[in-house]
Amino acid sequence: MGWFFKTQRVIYKPVEEVDLSPDSDEVYLRANVKAPRMAGFLIKIAAWILESRILGAMLVYILKGENLIHKLVSFAELKEPPVYVPYHPWKDLKEQEAKCIPSELPPSEKAQHAVDCLPLCSDVIINTQQPTFRRWTIQDYSRAYISGETTPLVVAKSFLDALHASSTPPLKMSFFISYNAEDILRQATESTLRYERGEPISVLDGVPIAVKDEIDSKPYQTTGGTKWLHKLRHCTDDACCVKHLRSCGAIIVGKTNMHELGVGTSGINPHYGATRNPYDPSKVTGGSSSGSAAVVSAGLCPVALGVDGGGSVRIPASLCGVIGFKPTFGRVSHSGVLPLNWTVGMVGILAGTVEDALIVYAAISGHHPSNQPTILPTVDVTLPEIEVMRLAHYLTIGSECNASIRPHLEKMDVAELGCDARVALRIYGAFNSREYLNAQRIRNRQMHFYKHILERADFIVIPTTGVTAYPIMEDALKYGDFDYINGAALVRYQIAGNFLGLPAVTVPVGYDKSGMPIGLQFIGRPWSESTLLHIAFAVQVLSIQSYRKPKVFYNLLSKKEEP
Amino acid sequence: MGWFFKTQRVIYKPVEEVDLSPDSDEVYLRANVKAPRMAGFLIKIAAWILESRILGAMLVYILKGENLIHKLVSFAELKEPPVYVPYHPWKDLKEQEAKCIPSELPPSEKAQHAVDCLPLCSDVIINTQQPTFRRWTIQDYSRAYISGETTPLVVAKSFLDALHASSTPPLKMSFFISYNAEDILRQATESTLRYERGEPISVLDGVPIAVKDEIDSKPYQTTGGTKWLHKLRHCTDDACCVKHLRSCGAIIVGKTNMHELGVGTSGINPHYGATRNPYDPSKVTGGSSSGSAAVVSAGLCPVALGVDGGGSVRIPASLCGVIGFKPTFGRVSHSGVLPLNWTVGMVGILAGTVEDALIVYAAISGHHPSNQPTILPTVDVTLPEIEVMRLAHYLTIGSECNASIRPHLEKMDVAELGCDARVALRIYGAFNSREYLNAQRIRNRQMHFYKHILERADFIVIPTTGVTAYPIMEDALKYGDFDYINGAALVRYQIAGNFLGLPAVTVPVGYDKSGMPIGLQFIGRPWSESTLLHIAFAVQVLSIQSYRKPKVFYNLLSKKEEP
Repeated sequence: MGWFFKTQRVIYKPVEEVDLSPDSDEVYLRANVKAPRMAGFLIKIAAWILESRILGAMLVYILKGENLIHKLVSFAELKEPPVYVPYHPWKDLKEQEAKCIPSELPPSEKAQHAVDCLPLCSDVIINTQQPTFRRWTIQDYSRAYISGETTPLVVAKSFLDALHASSTPPLKMSFFISYNAEDILRQATESTLRYERGEPISVLDGVPIAVKDEIDSKPYQTTGGTKWLHKLRHCTDDACCVKHLRSCGAIIVGKTNMHELGVGTSGINPHYGATRNPYDPSKVTGGSSSGSAAVVSAGLCPVALGVDGGGSVRIPASLCGVIGFKPTFGRVSHSGVLPLNWTVGMVGILAGTVEDALIVYAAISGHHPSNQPTILPTVDVTLPEIEVMRLAHYLTIGSECNASIRPHLEKMDVAELGCDARVALRIYGAFNSREYLNAQRIRNRQMHFYKHILERADFIVIPTTGVTAYPIMEDALKYGDFDYINGAALVRYQIAGNFLGLPAVTVPVGYDKSGMPIGLQFIGRPWSESTLLHIAFAVQVLSIQSYRKPKVFYNLLSKKEEP
Repeated sequence: MGWFFKTQRVIYKPVEEVDLSPDSDEVYLRANVKAPRMAGFLIKIAAWILESRILGAMLVYILKGENLIHKLVSFAELKEPPVYVPYHPWKDLKEQEAKCIPSELPPSEKAQHAVDCLPLCSDVIINTQQPTFRRWTIQDYSRAYISGETTPLVVAKSFLDALHASSTPPLKMSFFISYNAEDILRQATESTLRYERGEPISVLDGVPIAVKDEIDSKPYQTTGGTKWLHKLRHCTDDACCVKHLRSCGAIIVGKTNMHELGVGTSGINPHYGATRNPYDPSKVTGGSSSGSAAVVSAGLCPVALGVDGGGSVRIPASLCGVIGFKPTFGRVSHSGVLPLNWTVGMVGILAGTVEDALIVYAAISGHHPSNQPTILPTVDVTLPEIEVMRLAHYLTIGSECNASIRPHLEKMDVAELGCDARVALRIYGAFNSREYLNAQRIRNRQMHFYKHILERADFIVIPTTGVTAYPIMEDALKYGDFDYINGAALVRYQIAGNFLGLPAVTVPVGYDKSGMPIGLQFIGRPWSESTLLHIAFAVQVLSIQSYRKPKVFYNLLSKKEEP
């Protein structure tokens, strides 16, 4: 009776019996990641084996078993019904005290409201502390334009020069997948004229903003980091969030590089190059929103848009030393974003400062935090089943990506895909409906756990990643690499933000021995972006003195002194 | 590249481009059901082959292909994201005019409110039309108790006599899986004492009500129609709906027979016997709530509870000539109901009359219809993709049942399962996550279609089943039978009620050539049970003159003339 075979499996306690106190006997299971790093010829072979029907099915089965998927998810015994979409019926009292911007206001007015809400101290702190390094902010650009110190057109030309320098040898940073100089200069000219007339639309007028190539933005095609998706799916309009930024006068400067289809977190793209870390171009940026984090880190834009389905905004933000902010699931419209999944992905913001993340968040979402300080209790808690949630999320994002993308795959030549994407997609296609449903039952458990914990604490402080930026191996460049061990370490602390839809933000707080940035992550209550950005701001104030300048950095406000 | 192989598949038009008008060129695809009827030794072999790993996987693949699952679901190209749970953000203006019972009232008061709302004409019609046959109603019982014509204890004893007569040769109707004479007589004695004191709790006091053996009800174990589930999952409390009925004074008379685990619709249970149709004991009742429909049909109870995950209340109601009512998804609590699925199953009511369905509905749900007549426009519409929805629902209920039940299966001897359940469960376990997700995307499409259609019409009139009660074959009795062709015909028109969560009711309207009942089905707007029960009542008034008495029928109000 083959299908009734016995296997090792977990019988989960009913969720209400799990002890969440600090002295809980819940064990922190180490990620039991058993997949060799593969690149070069090896990954080509692996892709070929996985794609062959019989051998592939056997190998996937072994991989699932070795990585505890069978034990913890597939054959697990659970009492909870599935929760499919991370919507929270949550009323946060503190948030209700926050000043709300009416959502029907135009984005430009919302952005202005956000500026008005910024803590007055933010400029004071920067000016009195005089940090040795800081990135130019949206307000720096706005003030420089208003004072006539520079113009959007001058900045756009500097941007194009810097982009050229960064794209060509010796640097070859691979920040962008596409940019159109003519389109950038046209937008900059229009913005410059508005400033000349004394009629800038908002604080974002003339500010260069880059967009991850997973988000529709005219006149570009949306590749999703592939060589083929745009041939099958045409971009005919701006995504909703891009529309909002455009209506504020922002200059959309192009589509940033990303991990192919967002299936990995290294930012190494075999078609458009490995995005390189401005703090050390021999190292990865993390991903999948690799280019968006890198351009902010390198000073090319104060802000960029990303999409975060499994840490894809926060991981590269952390590795590149910038802010990465992912609002609550459902807060920002996903219209015009590639449907690579349906229940875990969210538009997020990469920015040099918390203040800039707030302004752009206000413009694209219609809700913004108050300027009231928050009182912060500190309690120790146990977060159970972290590794279980990582696996359940992997199953979910994989299954959804496969269901969404596979009709395209069936029309194309598989050789157009990078080998790591081929390996990932083959694994994504191997999950059965029981595994998917059990993953959603695990989502139910975790939503319970976090609800109980967040009733006692305003937010959770955890690392952003389990590893800092690591070297880009030469053998990864041609076919990509499949590095599930580093991947799991990058993703380990991200999942609550995606699987449970909770808002989260990462703030740079220091550097490792080799000088690569370290981020600290704050996970908030549902719909409580206000509290979250407050604490992020406080941490930024504490950390800004120690911020270091990346090796690759461009000063677009050239008339200003190097920041 | 095995997994990229090409296959025939449908590319669905975006949902908003589908023409729903009567002259739409959408074709009504006939169910292309290709699975031989299997029973006896053949089904044993089939179960064995399906359960063997390699041969089983091959056979399932062939079955999926032959039954259009690959073409219409697995490999389909869809634009819509998934909708996982059929909740409707629907405000029905007519329903808002309906008189609402405050949900905080105790069930006994709600039942009384429902009685007060019954159309005054209902008694008048019955008394003036003097139908040749009608079943005793809740109010008949209540009046007989109040007048002292009989007592609950007398009725309970008649019930036990009738049950004994129906269970033993030559009839062997297999109505019940378990009943406890002592418990029934105890409840009846208490009720009788209340009437003696002049203190009946409600119109339901002393009324015998049977409960499908999928719903927890003390002192019985809940078998789900199996020989083993109750050994692994203990019933420790009444289900919410049973509690409500008990608090109204109803006598719970036992647990009715059902198709094993609800995996089929014939009502043939190899462990507890094939439930036999009171209109012709050589024929099926339909299922899975087979016993609940049959006991109402045979006059043993005016009302019984069932669960409808794919027509399981409406199908046997239609085949047994009684009312089958399935409220909107979420209207009745599922607490204490076996979790055989999470997104399609709903508690439903089997009753002799629409009025009785209304009274019990009020008691278990806390919402009841008004007594205002409804004006009924008639429009012709096209319902697209009926067969696609049937397959998507099959995939969904199968996947959810598998995820819920399989941990139990892994602990038991497979031989304890009936062969048709083994076959069904093997197929249920063979769906992958892409198929599950595509099924939910098809759910999204259908929710759109029905929303548009129900904006123009108060309800949809369609047949209840595609076939009337058919003979029970001798070879099905021992191992069950797997008759996907009759199964698909029974289920074909049920699915909107389950997959889209819409309320639906079936009313007996006539008989086929062999004298077996025919039901007509009305599918309503979400949350518009009021309108729906109104039309059901109107149809009942038109049909009641033609109602025929079943061959097997018991008159529990024996002092009254045979109805």
